Amino acid sequence: MLKAKVTVTLKKSILDPQGSAVEKALKSMGYPVDEVRIGKYMEVTLPEAARGNATEMMHEICRKLLSNPVIEDYRFELEDKE
Amino acid sequence: MLKAKVTVTLKKSILDPQGSAVEKALKSMGYPVDEVRIGKYMEVTLPEAARGNATEMMHEICRKLLSNPVIEDYRFELEDKE
Repeated sequence: MLKAKVTVTLKKSILDPQGSAVEKALKSMGYPVDEVRIGKYMEVTLPEAARGNATEMMHEICRKLLSNPVIEDYRFELEDKE
Repeated sequence: MLKAKVTVTLKKSILDPQGSAVEKALKSMGYPVDEVRIGKYMEVTLPEAARGNATEMMHEICRKLLSNPVIEDYRFELEDKE
């Protein structure tokens, strides 16, 4: 089996109010942080049969369902799952 | 500056209804996926001054604010930010 580890992040130009809230919370707790940006993480397990076109399929899945290409970037890595 | 890339995932024994929903959506779109698990991803930028104890500080931040240790696991990697 294959596992795709997908990370979706807001594009740099897009405001991230959730990240700002966490940043403020950390500062109020006394931690010296400069910035916090929040994204999503997904693990998609694929069957062995999908190995041949896994990369193209994952690009399609990321574009169509897992990310919003207007405001988000995605990246993923494929690895073998024991 | 330093950047900590934090990934928070649900422990294996915890049900992930959000992941199940995405899994069903992908299957209904014709994609052969076995399982989808959804987590969180955060990037924390730290000032140069925090370099000395960055690892301990990030463990503390992850335990106290970014994850719920009862149902979630976290991991992070530190990297230099240009």
